[in-house]
Amino acid sequence: MSIAEIRRFFEPKSVALIGASRSPAKFSALILNNLLTWGYGGKIFPVNPYTGELQGLKCYPALGEIREEVDLAIIALPAFSVPGALRDCARNGIKGAIIISSGFNEAGEEGVKRQREIVAIAKEAGMRFLGPNTTGVLNPEARFTSTWNMVPSIRSGPVAFIAQTGMFAGVMLAAILTTEGFGVSRVAGLGNKLDVAEADILEYLEQDDATRVIMIYMEGVKEGRRFLEVAGRVGRRKPIILLKGGRTEAGARASRSHTGSLATKDDILEGALRQIGVVRAMDMEELVDYAKIFAFQPLPLGHRIGLVSMSGGSAVMASDALVEAGLSIADLQPQTLAQIGRLLPEWAIVTHPLDLEPLAERVGRFEAYKMGLELVLADPGVDGCLLSISGMEEGDVALGEVMAPVCRGCAKPISVHIMAEKKTYELMAAVLEEQGIPVYFTQRRAAKALAALYRYRSLMADGRGSSV
Amino acid sequence: MSIAEIRRFFEPKSVALIGASRSPAKFSALILNNLLTWGYGGKIFPVNPYTGELQGLKCYPALGEIREEVDLAIIALPAFSVPGALRDCARNGIKGAIIISSGFNEAGEEGVKRQREIVAIAKEAGMRFLGPNTTGVLNPEARFTSTWNMVPSIRSGPVAFIAQTGMFAGVMLAAILTTEGFGVSRVAGLGNKLDVAEADILEYLEQDDATRVIMIYMEGVKEGRRFLEVAGRVGRRKPIILLKGGRTEAGARASRSHTGSLATKDDILEGALRQIGVVRAMDMEELVDYAKIFAFQPLPLGHRIGLVSMSGGSAVMASDALVEAGLSIADLQPQTLAQIGRLLPEWAIVTHPLDLEPLAERVGRFEAYKMGLELVLADPGVDGCLLSISGMEEGDVALGEVMAPVCRGCAKPISVHIMAEKKTYELMAAVLEEQGIPVYFTQRRAAKALAALYRYRSLMADGRGSSV
Repeated sequence: MSIAEIRRFFEPKSVALIGASRSPAKFSALILNNLLTWGYGGKIFPVNPYTGELQGLKCYPALGEIREEVDLAIIALPAFSVPGALRDCARNGIKGAIIISSGFNEAGEEGVKRQREIVAIAKEAGMRFLGPNTTGVLNPEARFTSTWNMVPSIRSGPVAFIAQTGMFAGVMLAAILTTEGFGVSRVAGLGNKLDVAEADILEYLEQDDATRVIMIYMEGVKEGRRFLEVAGRVGRRKPIILLKGGRTEAGARASRSHTGSLATKDDILEGALRQIGVVRAMDMEELVDYAKIFAFQPLPLGHRIGLVSMSGGSAVMASDALVEAGLSIADLQPQTLAQIGRLLPEWAIVTHPLDLEPLAERVGRFEAYKMGLELVLADPGVDGCLLSISGMEEGDVALGEVMAPVCRGCAKPISVHIMAEKKTYELMAAVLEEQGIPVYFTQRRAAKALAALYRYRSLMADGRGSSV
Repeated sequence: MSIAEIRRFFEPKSVALIGASRSPAKFSALILNNLLTWGYGGKIFPVNPYTGELQGLKCYPALGEIREEVDLAIIALPAFSVPGALRDCARNGIKGAIIISSGFNEAGEEGVKRQREIVAIAKEAGMRFLGPNTTGVLNPEARFTSTWNMVPSIRSGPVAFIAQTGMFAGVMLAAILTTEGFGVSRVAGLGNKLDVAEADILEYLEQDDATRVIMIYMEGVKEGRRFLEVAGRVGRRKPIILLKGGRTEAGARASRSHTGSLATKDDILEGALRQIGVVRAMDMEELVDYAKIFAFQPLPLGHRIGLVSMSGGSAVMASDALVEAGLSIADLQPQTLAQIGRLLPEWAIVTHPLDLEPLAERVGRFEAYKMGLELVLADPGVDGCLLSISGMEEGDVALGEVMAPVCRGCAKPISVHIMAEKKTYELMAAVLEEQGIPVYFTQRRAAKALAALYRYRSLMADGRGSSV
């Protein structure tokens, strides 16, 4: 199997939209609309026997009527018409198809029959297909998508998503992109994954320059051994964060009824994944929390974390969180302590976690954050830093601008916690995340993200990442 | 010790502000400004030897010059002046003081000496005091506060906060109130709690009609036995959610350096708290997640949860989360399944978790949510419900309005997860939370909140809540 086969799904030179419809609420119309809005650069061939023109594009009554090369087909038809359409693709030499339609192995006996049929057709023709029962792919770089979800624009960035469910390419993606400061490189919704599965996409992403971190939402594992093998190899170069659905019996049952796939017994998979260095997330919040720090920050060389805070209570909670996440509070070197001591008012005692309040009395709040973080980061006994910011007023948004260069220039990872009223939080987080500094709503989330970086680094350093 | 002594801190009839300052950046000026902005109804007596008038109020050179009764003193002076001021309070028959100033047991030898002094003065005079090293209290009902944080307005509601650190009455409170849909009844920042501690406040809150749920952020425990005794008793009537700082050695060390108090060994406390039914939260997010559902929803009679969702993937994640949190997916009764089946298109199979998509094909999305939730809630085998909403478009804000009455009318608890782009999420969550329906960003947070309700209910039903 070649990567070029998978690349076709993300970077097709031309695309036929089978089942193109004039009715604006139909999936096919929404897909076409997205392609036009995004400004997809390849040729689009709507296929529909009853229509001469669609949204300004020439409509073809049948695939056979298209006189140019068709790289990829998007099939948005009722399930019973899909086998015929796929046969037509095969006859016309089309090598890849995204099947949007549902009604296959998740839909009773009839569906299972249809499933067998499309698998056989594709196999015989040497075609690859994505789905069925999916929204397919998004590639902001190529301005290509097969999703029918209304996605007016999408922020480009280093994080790829692979999801078993269309949700990811739709509502969940929208939730993430409007809440977080990072962007995406490629999104693949695999649906029932009767052909293309996670491992195929991983191999494509391995050589995709736009992708540096990979998020996966997966329910059932297909070809478990191959998945572990590929994930182990790709994950060494591009960290993989995995949210597994169907970890429990109840979850697995629910999965069966909507994708028709068997969720895998979790404890076996869990052990195997841990060994190969795949980072596990327990919900969407963790998935995004981890992806963000992997996308933005370098790996720490050790577990000794510097902790800088303007609030005593926040330093306590952050200390607890770091230790509970498996990290430790760094012992600052005597020189660092002495250096900080010289900056403080006489009454103040230098401690680590570093309390910025006395320093702020001397040099002002903004300067205190800056100097405090710089001094702690420079200590050779510190492998990474948790910075806890207490946003006092709206003017603190400027604090984000002050801190960004300090954080950005550093070879050690930094995780930022901000405690502030909502608007200040959002403005400050936006400024910092735009500069690649990950921001979290609680000390615990900031600490757990740092710990995920450290665990991954430890496994990779042990060389265990390569053995499956 | 009487509750009236504590009530004075929250509902003083008149207040003297000792250390009132003309300089607008000083704590005292900020406090006075808050009192005036809030519209505190009692008399305010600024005390300052050098100033005739402050923000339109007559200023008194000394406490002795005030000819009216002073119920409470707020002391905002440098630490070295506090013992003298407290003595003056005692001489003038003032029975309560909030000591804002820092520089006591958290500040080395000098501070410890000062600490002993103020404790002795108060004891001898039969005075009670809050602090030192605190922002003190907020009581939106009485429009009274001693905080210097700029808190222009505060939403009234059923949740009381007790916090060891001033952070709560300031930045953290602002973060919570601008992010969440519930309001607060009373806030108490205890600071170094040299006199008044958690147990005292709990006894006051026990009989305070405005308070139904109590959040605590606590580092060190003072008079551990009494705290457990009181928390056990009060917690039976008004659920207590506790976030404990200093759970780890590192956290306890950090706590010592900012409040001077010894954080308590966590595993012993943890066991005792579990027994008396205090709900533990691991960070601020959990603290608020739990407080919200306790404030808004009834307790479930059992662990069997109904699960209603428009997204298959979301149902999988919610199933995992419910089971992992210690709950179970309810088995719907045959009548309920049959009833739902009659509403669905022919091809659809009725399953639980209930997938709303087929129903939506028949009756529309909004109606599907409504009917689905109503049917599942009505099943006698269901003790509570997790509703997962996929917000597709901004118009979905109206879905909040449709669902609110369904959720509100029910004697079983409901926890709502919304997956949507940010703006839709926020608008929909605001509509629902205003009606008392708790909303969460992930299925896992929604499930854990339901589980906290269930665990609490089980303990109370066992009668274990009363035994310490």
